Amino acid sequence: MPEQAAASAQVQGRESFGSRLGAAMAARGPLCVGIDPHPSLLSAWGLKDDVDGLRAFSLTVLEAVASLAAAVKPQVALYERHGSAGIAVLEEVLAIARDESVLTIADAKRGDIGSTMAAYADAWLRDGSPLAADSVTLSPYLGFESLRPALDLAAETGRGVFVLALTSNPEGPSVQHVGGADSVARRIAHAAGGENRRYPGDLGSVGLVVGATVGSALADLDVDLAAMRGPILAPGLGAQGATPAHLRATFGNAYGQVLGTSSREILSAGPKRQELRDAAQRTLDGLRGE
Amino acid sequence: MPEQAAASAQVQGRESFGSRLGAAMAARGPLCVGIDPHPSLLSAWGLKDDVDGLRAFSLTVLEAVASLAAAVKPQVALYERHGSAGIAVLEEVLAIARDESVLTIADAKRGDIGSTMAAYADAWLRDGSPLAADSVTLSPYLGFESLRPALDLAAETGRGVFVLALTSNPEGPSVQHVGGADSVARRIAHAAGGENRRYPGDLGSVGLVVGATVGSALADLDVDLAAMRGPILAPGLGAQGATPAHLRATFGNAYGQVLGTSSREILSAGPKRQELRDAAQRTLDGLRGE
Repeated sequence: MPEQAAASAQVQGRESFGSRLGAAMAARGPLCVGIDPHPSLLSAWGLKDDVDGLRAFSLTVLEAVASLAAAVKPQVALYERHGSAGIAVLEEVLAIARDESVLTIADAKRGDIGSTMAAYADAWLRDGSPLAADSVTLSPYLGFESLRPALDLAAETGRGVFVLALTSNPEGPSVQHVGGADSVARRIAHAAGGENRRYPGDLGSVGLVVGATVGSALADLDVDLAAMRGPILAPGLGAQGATPAHLRATFGNAYGQVLGTSSREILSAGPKRQELRDAAQRTLDGLRGE
Repeated sequence: MPEQAAASAQVQGRESFGSRLGAAMAARGPLCVGIDPHPSLLSAWGLKDDVDGLRAFSLTVLEAVASLAAAVKPQVALYERHGSAGIAVLEEVLAIARDESVLTIADAKRGDIGSTMAAYADAWLRDGSPLAADSVTLSPYLGFESLRPALDLAAETGRGVFVLALTSNPEGPSVQHVGGADSVARRIAHAAGGENRRYPGDLGSVGLVVGATVGSALADLDVDLAAMRGPILAPGLGAQGATPAHLRATFGNAYGQVLGTSSREILSAGPKRQELRDAAQRTLDGLRGE
C-alpha cells in the first residue's frame, strides 16, 4: 500500500525525496549543478566528443561539486546521443553520486501512458535499476495523471519527480499558457499540489520544473507555487540570463522551495576542479543571499 | 542548407522519410508492428525479464514481421528499464531492421529545448549514431517549435518524426483539449502541417501520433489531418480496443495517411514466428479491407 507507506515519509529505510532534498537544501544551500556534457563544452575542456570525453567531463564535475551542491542534474540527452555506451557512463555517474551522498535529478523529461509509463518509472525510480536516480524529470503532454506509475513508484521507493510546468523558452506558452484562467500550466501545478498531500513535512516529493526567467507568467496565470508544496527546479541561472535576484522576484513566497539550477556558467569554469568548485560556490553564495 | 536539400526529397542518397514510408505503405499495406517487450509478454513467452529475454523477444518479432510490415516501432521505455545493456539491445534491433529494409519508429517521446533538443535529435536522427532510426516520436509540452532541431535534422538526413498530438488515454484531454477553438492538439496539428510544406509529394516527413480510439475528438476540436499531410501513427489497434473499421471511421478522408499500429494483439500470438506472422497478416488484411 504505497500511499500509506509514503505517508510515513520513511520507506524501505529511506526518507521521502522531499524530506531528503529539504535537508540537503538546508544544510548546503539551494543549488543544483547541471552535468551537461554538451559537445561545445567537451571541446572547450580539450576533450573529444566521444565516450571517454563524456566520462572524464562527468566525473570531473561530480567530484568537484558533490560535497557542495544539494543535487546534481545530469542531462540525459547528452548521454543518449552516445548510445548505450553513453548510457553506461550515466549509470556510473549515478552510482558515484549515490556513494558521494549527493542527490541526483535525472533530467530525462520522460512521459508516456500505462504500462509504458510504468517502464520509465522502473528505469529511473526502482531500487536496483541500473539507472536509478533520486528523482527524474517528467513531461505531462499526455496528462498529469498519465504519470501515475512514476508518482506511485516514487512514493514507494522514497524517490521524487519534477514535472514540466511552466518554462521560459519562447515556444513554451503555445502549449503551457493555453486555456485562459484554467491554463495547462495551472492545471499541472494544481495536480502536483494535490499529489503532495500524501507527503507530510515541509516539502512534498512531487516537484515542478519552472523556468527561472518566466517573469510575470506565474502571476498572470494564477499559479500558486507555495500552495503546491513541492520543490521547484528552476533552470536558467547564470549563462541563461537569470540571477539569484531574479529567482527571488519570480518565485516570491515560494522561494524557499526553489532549487536554483546552473549548468553552463559553472561548467565553463572547468576543466580544473578547483575552478569549477569556486564557480559553484559563487552561485551558491548568491542563492543564499551572501 | 537543409531546407533546400529536403525540398529535393532526396538527401544524402536517401529519399525523405515521408516518401519512403508512403512507398512502404503502398507496397505492403499500412501496418506498423510495435516491438513491446513488456515484462508480462516476456513471461508469457517463457522468457526471463532480463537482457537475454529482451534480446530474444525483440529479434524474434523483428524476424517474423520485417518482410511484412511497413514499419516496426520498438518501445524505448522497455529497453531503457534494463539500463545501458537494454539500450545496446535496441541498437541491435535498429541495425537489423536497417539490414532487413523495414522502416523503424523509435517510440521515445522525447522533447526538450535548444541544445538539449539538438542532442536528442543527434541520438535518434543523425547518420552514424548508434541509435539512429528512420523516425522518432516526440512530445511537444515545451511547444512545437522547441522540437526545431529534430525537425531540421530529420529533413537533412531523410528521417522523420511523429509528434504527440491527440491521444485516447483518459488523461490526455486535460492538456490536449484545453483552449477551446484553438486547442493545444489543434495547434500541434496545424504546426505539423506548416512544417510539411517543405516536403513535396503525397506525404510529408512530420507525422503525428493520434490515438485510434479518439472518437469524435478530431471533429470536436476541428483538427484537419488531411490538410496536415503527414503520416498518422495510430496506436490502439487490437488488444487496446480499436478495429480497422474504427480507424476508417475516426480518420475519414485522412485514412490514407494512417499507419495502424498493433502491439499486444500480435505479440501475444508469439513466441512462434509463424504465429506472429499470421497474426500480423490478419491485422494487415483488416487494414487493407480484405
